[in-house]
Amino acid sequence: MKEVKAYAASANDAPLKEVNINRRDLLDNDVSIDIMYCGVCHSDIHAKLNDWGNAKYPIVPGHEIIGKVTAVGSNVSNHKVGDLVGVGCMVDSCQECSACKEDQEMWCENGSTSTYNSKDPHLGGHTLGGYSKLIVVREEFVLKVPTNLDTKAVAPLLCAGITTYSPLKHWNVKKGDKVGIIGLGGLGHMGIKFAAAMGAETVMITTSEEKAKDAKRLGADQVIISKDESQMKEHNDSFDFILNTIPVGHDVNPYLALLKRDCTMCLVGAIEPLENVHGANLILRRKKLAGSLIGGIKETQEMLDFCGEHNITSDIEMIDMQDINNAFERVQKNDVKYRFVIDMETL
Amino acid sequence: MKEVKAYAASANDAPLKEVNINRRDLLDNDVSIDIMYCGVCHSDIHAKLNDWGNAKYPIVPGHEIIGKVTAVGSNVSNHKVGDLVGVGCMVDSCQECSACKEDQEMWCENGSTSTYNSKDPHLGGHTLGGYSKLIVVREEFVLKVPTNLDTKAVAPLLCAGITTYSPLKHWNVKKGDKVGIIGLGGLGHMGIKFAAAMGAETVMITTSEEKAKDAKRLGADQVIISKDESQMKEHNDSFDFILNTIPVGHDVNPYLALLKRDCTMCLVGAIEPLENVHGANLILRRKKLAGSLIGGIKETQEMLDFCGEHNITSDIEMIDMQDINNAFERVQKNDVKYRFVIDMETL
Repeated sequence: MKEVKAYAASANDAPLKEVNINRRDLLDNDVSIDIMYCGVCHSDIHAKLNDWGNAKYPIVPGHEIIGKVTAVGSNVSNHKVGDLVGVGCMVDSCQECSACKEDQEMWCENGSTSTYNSKDPHLGGHTLGGYSKLIVVREEFVLKVPTNLDTKAVAPLLCAGITTYSPLKHWNVKKGDKVGIIGLGGLGHMGIKFAAAMGAETVMITTSEEKAKDAKRLGADQVIISKDESQMKEHNDSFDFILNTIPVGHDVNPYLALLKRDCTMCLVGAIEPLENVHGANLILRRKKLAGSLIGGIKETQEMLDFCGEHNITSDIEMIDMQDINNAFERVQKNDVKYRFVIDMETL
Repeated sequence: MKEVKAYAASANDAPLKEVNINRRDLLDNDVSIDIMYCGVCHSDIHAKLNDWGNAKYPIVPGHEIIGKVTAVGSNVSNHKVGDLVGVGCMVDSCQECSACKEDQEMWCENGSTSTYNSKDPHLGGHTLGGYSKLIVVREEFVLKVPTNLDTKAVAPLLCAGITTYSPLKHWNVKKGDKVGIIGLGGLGHMGIKFAAAMGAETVMITTSEEKAKDAKRLGADQVIISKDESQMKEHNDSFDFILNTIPVGHDVNPYLALLKRDCTMCLVGAIEPLENVHGANLILRRKKLAGSLIGGIKETQEMLDFCGEHNITSDIEMIDMQDINNAFERVQKNDVKYRFVIDMETL
């Protein structure tokens, strides 16, 4: 075992502060990574606050990890010392069930291991995330990072990126499609970039007039202010796909009305009860309401490669590790464009 | 114009009674049909009661029509005098929009004409349905009825049949799939028959212990009593497709839990607000909640041909036209196995 510095919270109402944690000794299939950058995901805050009722303390958040390989186990052939790599939301799965075999490790039937807050199969206790200097991860869960991109701004792709890329690919978004992205935050700003890069007519749907300009800068062709009923009505029955990034329960009915017949709106944010969905909004015109969570490892690599080709990164604000508690507060107030990334040099 | 006998209600709180109505003279593309049987659909009652706020009086319900062709217009080549034919929920559409061209006339962008309660493009006023002796329908909306089946029991296929067949086909139900049918009524009993005929492992999901036996007689391999939480839990994450025929708003969350990852539950009954759908039930395992309404004319013909091949009809109770008000009451109490059919000889 190796002792490394990290930032942890000891309880839901305690601030994050510097601690020492243990990382396992390198196993034959392991990769040891010196962490350079780690994105700050809204999930980190939910987890720390125990909003989902499953927090394990001390909690070390962080699942948007970028770093350099410093050592590899004897069986590792896919990564070598010096490689620029990433680690996302998962660090292990059984690799044998039908979900794993179909590259959907997040639905591993034997339970995938999350980067933090999961049972740790090696050291016991629970896994500790990327707000730390070093992490040891089995090779299958280590991603290759394109070297032509601004490395710091790649970090959020490991969660915000794959969370939005995966449903856009699953529902086959392509040139000529009219695609709506609801909500302009960490997820939504990636949704716009991906949909635009896939060739879609990309429409930002937001409550905020202020965000309209920024949406266009990010690649949106049009903006709909969702509070404006007449604007919404003009776009009824016109969307091929809608990615809904609203992070809380809400009324999906006005958005379902925007879909063409046979088309889908996919939730990626609202892990909460929605207001009453009206059955008629699905039955009339055979519409679909779906959900999606991150994506498998193979698809995460595909997403990173896509980003390399299309020169896509997240819009970020860099922070020092010591600023994390302030950053959490600002994320909760939606005061970030669009993702904080921690410079792990500062730890 | 031709005067024919029918049964109509003059207001939402008035009983149905005998009246005379007008049918148009035969146009070049029209088929004139002497109605032999008409099914009693729950929609007939909703429409008569103005539950959907769009009733036009006097209302003549009925969109599960079986009859014999008595005359055809000069351009009609597809039907001839003496043919056994059916008419379902639609009698006209533009035939030119993308929906019509894709055989989805129910979503005609210029508005399809429902068999009753729609604007009548020929006589003005509104269309009058199958609770009558005769109907004149343009040939594209006249279906061929297999002659090897019990003709009376074919009537409900024109609505209850296509409403359940279409989603089972759209979501590609096939041999080996585990398919759930929620609710055992007019729609549900057809859902069981179709899913079983398609080779699926067919599971009836019902609140009622009583209905379990009947479900098996109709072709269900298994029955789950939905009020029994432990029974439900055993089947979590196991269904390839679920057809939800519950006709009112309800809590879909326990049913979403039954779906395998990436699979769909389709609503065909609940044209009402659902209780709070929990976003997590869609986001975790990429599940889909969808809806479907009847089906296009081409698919309705395919469904009738499938019924001919597989010897499928509805389970019915025959009534005289004069019994209709009583039948409406019994349908509202769910006291019918599983569809009333009116013998139009009695009018």
